[in-house]
Order: sequence, then structure tokens, then C-alpha cells
Amino acid sequence: MPKVETILTPALFHLYNQDLTEKNVVVTDILRATTTMCVAFENQAREMIPVSTPEDALVWQQRGYLAAAERSGVTVQGFELGNSPQEYSKEKVGGQRIAITTTNGTRALEMSKGAASVYVGAFRNVQALAEVLKKENRDVLLFCAGWKNKFNLEDTLYAGCLFQSLGADFVCADDATAAAVDLYNLASPDLAGYLQKANHVQRFQTLHIESDLEVCLRMNTSTLVPRYIHGKIALYGHETMS
Amino acid sequence: MPKVETILTPALFHLYNQDLTEKNVVVTDILRATTTMCVAFENQAREMIPVSTPEDALVWQQRGYLAAAERSGVTVQGFELGNSPQEYSKEKVGGQRIAITTTNGTRALEMSKGAASVYVGAFRNVQALAEVLKKENRDVLLFCAGWKNKFNLEDTLYAGCLFQSLGADFVCADDATAAAVDLYNLASPDLAGYLQKANHVQRFQTLHIESDLEVCLRMNTSTLVPRYIHGKIALYGHETMS
Repeated sequence: MPKVETILTPALFHLYNQDLTEKNVVVTDILRATTTMCVAFENQAREMIPVSTPEDALVWQQRGYLAAAERSGVTVQGFELGNSPQEYSKEKVGGQRIAITTTNGTRALEMSKGAASVYVGAFRNVQALAEVLKKENRDVLLFCAGWKNKFNLEDTLYAGCLFQSLGADFVCADDATAAAVDLYNLASPDLAGYLQKANHVQRFQTLHIESDLEVCLRMNTSTLVPRYIHGKIALYGHETMS
Repeated sequence: MPKVETILTPALFHLYNQDLTEKNVVVTDILRATTTMCVAFENQAREMIPVSTPEDALVWQQRGYLAAAERSGVTVQGFELGNSPQEYSKEKVGGQRIAITTTNGTRALEMSKGAASVYVGAFRNVQALAEVLKKENRDVLLFCAGWKNKFNLEDTLYAGCLFQSLGADFVCADDATAAAVDLYNLASPDLAGYLQKANHVQRFQTLHIESDLEVCLRMNTSTLVPRYIHGKIALYGHETMS
């Protein structure tokens, strides 16, 4: 049976990247990069390109892309989009290509290059992504983007949730996945309530973006699975669209 | 109020070592290095020196120390002691000095040099150590030795337990500590039962050292607090003994 391991932060990634070409990686940055990517595709964005710096995003802007940049929770000055899923409305992103850089999520995607497939995971598409992983039947790395290389609760809860969604056909292969499952089961009756103690949620309160939290914790609103392939994010099964 | 943060593995240590001289560090490697150190002092060892390699331990042996060496759970061939607390009987270690190298715990101690104080934490002395930390009233880093830089459940449970033992005078300052507390509360009715899913406990079964587990999970059997200072571990408040 295929195995699942959980990478709690990007600083631990190097411990898991043996035989990466044989494994599927799910990158998650629940608050908010991977949620925002899912929302963008729900609202008919055509393609997203994760880039390392705001300057890189501006280079793509000159080629007709929308440019999105966030650092430490705030939209970088002069950019039309940041990292709030609520900005990615159909009016704004429908039919568009977007170049995006964020504090944690885009870097984790970049690091995962070389895996069999790299998927963009959020609560919004957790069951749909689980179905894709079951069909592919490979070992899976659940890669939590964390916060500036540190552990965070929200990405870990998602890892536990995704493992549960995989059902009995996958083996929990490490203590990190076991912990994620237990934390998710503890939190699942009231995810938003549980996450009030999370550092990043407290940061949201300071930034007055609490309404993003609800959008980021909504479960299975979408059957769309974005995949990072050849440097671009496109919908799984629709890559020829881009 | 002083803050508590939890370092889930040595690979994350570099994210926490700002102002290290102002912080107390508690190193824990429940299975088994820090438990074994506590047991050695309970059985009247005089002093322990954590060293990097088995060869280093042999150098100390020539100066009259007992030499202890473990790698991947097994006593290194030719050594009189390994990393099982049950080997550290009063007959063997009473009055002795010991040089010890282990897979994870001794390295974590070494990394912590430079902190205000570095304490050796195990379930056996959790309340006694909490009292010392309360008296000192500094910020605390709970440093889990992990397994080869990966997260493990047993050290994380200990971090949660120690934070709980500190009571209301310390602030939970990060998501890792919050997760550790929740996992500990989930596990505490039956720590040994909970840890059956831990990778390292499964490794114990393979190595036929399950009886160590019970010794390592025994709570508050001791009021002795070993401290790592000037390259040596000695009892807090008794350092002049050595």
C-alpha cells in the first residue's frame, strides 16, 4: 500500500526528498496561498505561475499576466492582487493568467519540483484531491508550507484531514501524519474555533482580514484540483486549456 | 510573562536561537537519552559528558570515565553501556562519571550551548524541572531531539506535559506548543497505549527493548534536575559535586 508522510515545514523538506520522482506531493498553505489558488480556478482563472519575488511577478505582468504579491500577510505596494481569496473574483480573474508570489506557499511549490506530480491542496478541494491521489496510487508527501519555516496548526490540520479523506488504502508512515490526524479529529467539530489559538489567525485579527478565515476553512466547495507542472499551475485534467 | 516555544526537531533549531543567552532550553529525548541521563543521576552517577562520536567516548574512558555509545537504537559494539535506562543501575553507575553519545539527544544538548541554562528533561523529572523554570522565570525553548531530525510523538508529548506543568505563569507562544499540549492531553490517560502508533515505539518492538518504554514514561519518580553546563551534565544545585 502506498505510504503517506507529512512534512511539517519547508525546513524539513530535505529529509523527505529521496525518490521524489516516485512520489506525489500535496502543497498546502491554507492561510492563504493554496486556498487562494483554488478560488482563482473556481473563478475560472486559466493559469497561475508561482514566482519567487514581486519583481518576477512584474516581468510576467508585462506579458499580459495579472500580478499578485504578498509578504507577511500584506499585499505588496503597487500590486493589483495580494493573497486574499476574496480578491480573486470571477470578474477579476475569470479567463486570466496570474503570476503570484507569497511568503510561504509559492516557495513550497517551487521546492517540490521533480515530484511525480505536485498538487495544490486546500480544504475547498480536499475530497477531490483525495480521489486523484487514490487513482494514482503512489506514495504521498503532505507538504505544509508553514510560516517562515515554522510549524503552523492550520496546514497540519489540513494534512490530517487529507489523510483521513484517503481512507484505508494508504498507510500512515510517520509520527507527523499521526499527530496531524489526531489534531484534525480534535479540531474538526469547529475548525474556526479551534484555530483561534493559531498564531496566524491572531495575525489575521491584527491585519483585519478575519473574513478570509471562513473562506479558507470551507470544505469541499470545489471538485477542481490545481496541479503544478512545468512551472505553471493548471487544472488537473485540463492542462491543455492553458 | 515569560514565553514558551517548542522546537519540534533539531532541523528547526536555527529558527529559534536569537537571544539564546536570555532563554532556558529544555532538551528532551524521551526514548531514551534524556530519560537515561535522569536515571543515571537517580542512581548516583556523578557527572555525564555528552560527546559527538563513539571515538570521543573512548578518549574519556582512558581518563576513567564509563563509555556509553548508541546508534540507531543499538549499543555500539565494544561499549560497556548503550542508551537503555535499565543498564544504568546503581551498581554500575553510582559514583561514576560517564561519557555518552547517542543518535539524537547528545547532539541536541551540544546545539543548545550558549543558552542561559540547558536542562535535561524527561517524564521522570517533569514537575521538578517545571519548578526550576518557574523560579528562574525566563523564556523557555522546549527542544525535542526527534529522530534523525524528524518529528516524533514522544518528545512532543513531553513538551506538552512540561508546558502544562508550568501552570499559568508562562505564555504558550507558538503553534508547536499549542499542538504539543493538545496531543499530550489526548494521550495522557494512557501514554504507553497512545504511543503504540509512534514510529520509535515500533522500532523498540523490533529491537526487543519494549521494557524500556515503561521506564521512559514513568512520571515524577525523581526531583533531580540534570543541567548541561560547561560541557558537562551535573545535577542542578549540586554542580560543585563534580
